[in-house]
Amino acid sequence: MVGRPRRSDVDESVIKAATELLLTRGYAGLSPDEVAERAGIAKTTLYRRWPTKDHLAVAIVNRLQDHDEITDTGDIRRDLPAYLEKIAAGLNRMRAAGRAPGDDDPSAGTVAELVAAAARHPDVGELERQMYARRNTMARALLERARDRGQLRADLDIEALFDQLAGALYYRVLITGSPVDRAYAERLVDTALRGATPENG
Amino acid sequence: MVGRPRRSDVDESVIKAATELLLTRGYAGLSPDEVAERAGIAKTTLYRRWPTKDHLAVAIVNRLQDHDEITDTGDIRRDLPAYLEKIAAGLNRMRAAGRAPGDDDPSAGTVAELVAAAARHPDVGELERQMYARRNTMARALLERARDRGQLRADLDIEALFDQLAGALYYRVLITGSPVDRAYAERLVDTALRGATPENG
Repeated sequence: MVGRPRRSDVDESVIKAATELLLTRGYAGLSPDEVAERAGIAKTTLYRRWPTKDHLAVAIVNRLQDHDEITDTGDIRRDLPAYLEKIAAGLNRMRAAGRAPGDDDPSAGTVAELVAAAARHPDVGELERQMYARRNTMARALLERARDRGQLRADLDIEALFDQLAGALYYRVLITGSPVDRAYAERLVDTALRGATPENG
Repeated sequence: MVGRPRRSDVDESVIKAATELLLTRGYAGLSPDEVAERAGIAKTTLYRRWPTKDHLAVAIVNRLQDHDEITDTGDIRRDLPAYLEKIAAGLNRMRAAGRAPGDDDPSAGTVAELVAAAARHPDVGELERQMYARRNTMARALLERARDRGQLRADLDIEALFDQLAGALYYRVLITGSPVDRAYAERLVDTALRGATPENG
């Protein structure tokens, strides 16, 4: 098999080329043909593995999210805003994909296209849900450890808590068009940890 | 102007026909030409007012959401789950649009298409953001009244709280594919009101 690149090498170069294209040109500018050309592989090879542009897009996001590690310093009031800030940064990067620097269009841009891609193709949807399940599992483990240390109450609904924290970020990006950043992540964590009723801390 | 229907009558019949088509056939089955035919107006009239199918879709959701009234009984622990249940019901209706009864596909369906429509056309995005701004204003007013009655703490970040509650519903429908219903709305409100730290109620 001399000279034939291994599948993982092909994957690497395709994802790299596709990521570059998506981030600079946005979803509308992500052309599978151009990705094949930049990655130096045949179009048929590309389409066999990623049948549509949507399949390629979810593979990119999958890869980008795998780099979002959770840091557990033992202090949930510090680790939680830090992790939410990473999620916000990923959303902001996708929201801004293909836009000129400084363009403050409030629309969700490529984030919305990815959500629609998942709804359009059952297999893309399945991949996206698996990716989010992995993330949710990591985040819940962080919260469970904090609960076991006594930093969170013993009967806390950890699923509902993380849905609220991550959900607020997605709601702003996808629905209301509001900004998400470190300061907002801190407001979220403070609101969620303290609770809304007056008897709370 | 004998025989010429007033603009508001045209709007009514178009939105009615379009809503019916969207709910039974889903986003893919929403054909502006068929809407014009069912509403008994010329295609050109339809396209002049709603240039694309996305414009029509956002007009439908706008109308449907206007019927989501907030009830204020004076008890926030009762009113908040009731309102979130209404939001969840609207999301479930759109998620199921065009699907056979009992089809439990976890994908976001038409909800995702609406989000993408808002990202695709600046004017549709603007309309959607205005619609959500109206809803957020109503919800925040409910929370402010509860705070003024002493049911919520005086320094509560009301924007962050409502983002978390509504956001968790959208996150499940659009991202993780999890169900949203009355029971989940109650879990959300309980988690948000009590807070996550042990010193809380």
